[in-house]
Amino acid sequence: MHFQTFTQEYKESFQDYLTALVKDASQTDIEEAMRYSLEAGGKRLRPLILIALVKAFGKDVHQSYPAAAALEMIHTYSLIHDDLPAMDDDDLRRGKPTSHIKFSEATAILAGDALLTKAFEVMTDGETTDTVKLKLIRELAQASGHEGMVGGQQADMDGENNELSVEELASIHSRKTGRLIRFAFRAAGLLVEAEKETLADLDTIADKIGIAYQIRDDILDVSSTEEELGKRVGADAKHGKSTYPALLGLKRAEELFSEHLDEALALNDAVAKRSTYYDKELLASFIQSLRLNR
Amino acid sequence: MHFQTFTQEYKESFQDYLTALVKDASQTDIEEAMRYSLEAGGKRLRPLILIALVKAFGKDVHQSYPAAAALEMIHTYSLIHDDLPAMDDDDLRRGKPTSHIKFSEATAILAGDALLTKAFEVMTDGETTDTVKLKLIRELAQASGHEGMVGGQQADMDGENNELSVEELASIHSRKTGRLIRFAFRAAGLLVEAEKETLADLDTIADKIGIAYQIRDDILDVSSTEEELGKRVGADAKHGKSTYPALLGLKRAEELFSEHLDEALALNDAVAKRSTYYDKELLASFIQSLRLNR
Repeated sequence: MHFQTFTQEYKESFQDYLTALVKDASQTDIEEAMRYSLEAGGKRLRPLILIALVKAFGKDVHQSYPAAAALEMIHTYSLIHDDLPAMDDDDLRRGKPTSHIKFSEATAILAGDALLTKAFEVMTDGETTDTVKLKLIRELAQASGHEGMVGGQQADMDGENNELSVEELASIHSRKTGRLIRFAFRAAGLLVEAEKETLADLDTIADKIGIAYQIRDDILDVSSTEEELGKRVGADAKHGKSTYPALLGLKRAEELFSEHLDEALALNDAVAKRSTYYDKELLASFIQSLRLNR
Repeated sequence: MHFQTFTQEYKESFQDYLTALVKDASQTDIEEAMRYSLEAGGKRLRPLILIALVKAFGKDVHQSYPAAAALEMIHTYSLIHDDLPAMDDDDLRRGKPTSHIKFSEATAILAGDALLTKAFEVMTDGETTDTVKLKLIRELAQASGHEGMVGGQQADMDGENNELSVEELASIHSRKTGRLIRFAFRAAGLLVEAEKETLADLDTIADKIGIAYQIRDDILDVSSTEEELGKRVGADAKHGKSTYPALLGLKRAEELFSEHLDEALALNDAVAKRSTYYDKELLASFIQSLRLNR
């Protein structure tokens, strides 16, 4: 199955599931603020990868919805907090006012906290065994906390206005964005009870895609318009952030990007060789969809 | 056993356990900021109640440490975020500079996020069954998210500069602070596998203590010095917050406070009558320790 067909079939059903998880309860704006950011029209990259992989292994996709929703909630909370005045100070996200502009700074902080908390509540749901649920909760916490995403965000801020090496840049990004992407692959692997070698391959594919995705983001930030991107461009330079195009030049950054995608494709073939029932087209077509048209 | 003896025996061991959970991992300040707030000398009210109750029921206290640590991490993150300029804008907490003063606003936001995340990681630890762990994770998320603490915090801000009724005030506080206190009692009940009636009594005791604690806080805010309290006094008036002394007068607030403690003591007797092995002195002496000396 092609990733685009899969997306057409499952994105809406997943989104309905996702926003229905946040029910009015507090008689305040907080739930509206939570849903506002959840519904802000993201690509749902992480949850769709997770769900697609579960489908590629021939399992019931609905068992993956809780983990996929939790992942998207964590991603969404991190965007709300990253956009705050004390952090990246962004007023536009996915073409819409950011949470603290639309509501207030206090509500944005609290809506982020509430989404982060809800993610772990959601992970206790679903058909999976208790043991797998606890393993997923633990891995999601490690991927998104001080060892992972939050630590990467702090390192990213510390690195502003310093010229970083490519290795330092990769280390920051592998935590800031890579760990959550890897969680999408690991969660799928754990949910379908994949064997050890396949889990390891999925980890590596995730890391390749994570780096590729960051290089792509950096490239688009210097070579797109606001209309194309739905957010402010040139933000990296504004914040004095090191980027792949700045460190390597645009041409070499584009080459590196392609190499990572090629390596991810080769590993996807290796997974398919080991598991004959594995529908490798789903992930392969997703990877191909990341390529830059130039 | 007297609660004070219990505290002398277990507080340090719990605190060592608590701060050892946050290990350096990110090569940034984030872990220092997490530990700074965890070590800021709080009374550990919530975790010590949880641990004391497990002891009162004659069970191994160490099985309660993960849930107790998670609870303290959630409480601590909420203080860090509440103190932020966009929220209560406090520069002093427990006699020390608040996190955003000591570090930076961005680091305070991230350290709060990281503690909130860590809480759920920690809950996957320990000797309890997977089923009880998942139940505790679910209840902690509900107690601390938009249905509980975070929603209460938003409602509290919305209520600033409005005169609230006593009922509205109670509803806000039951969420903002009461739900986490109730979690301490419920978690203990679930860990010791208490029967249904006892769980219900523990819930009610928790709610009585929660309200009493808030009334006490309000009274101390108008009748103490900064040195006694280790934080700014008169903060409620500054933020235009409704308080029990303001709504009821100081004398009636003090009476109401005592009534709640008396009712909690009576319910503690009821629990003891049902479970002959239950050491009722632990909770009774804690409740008595809350009384105001005047």
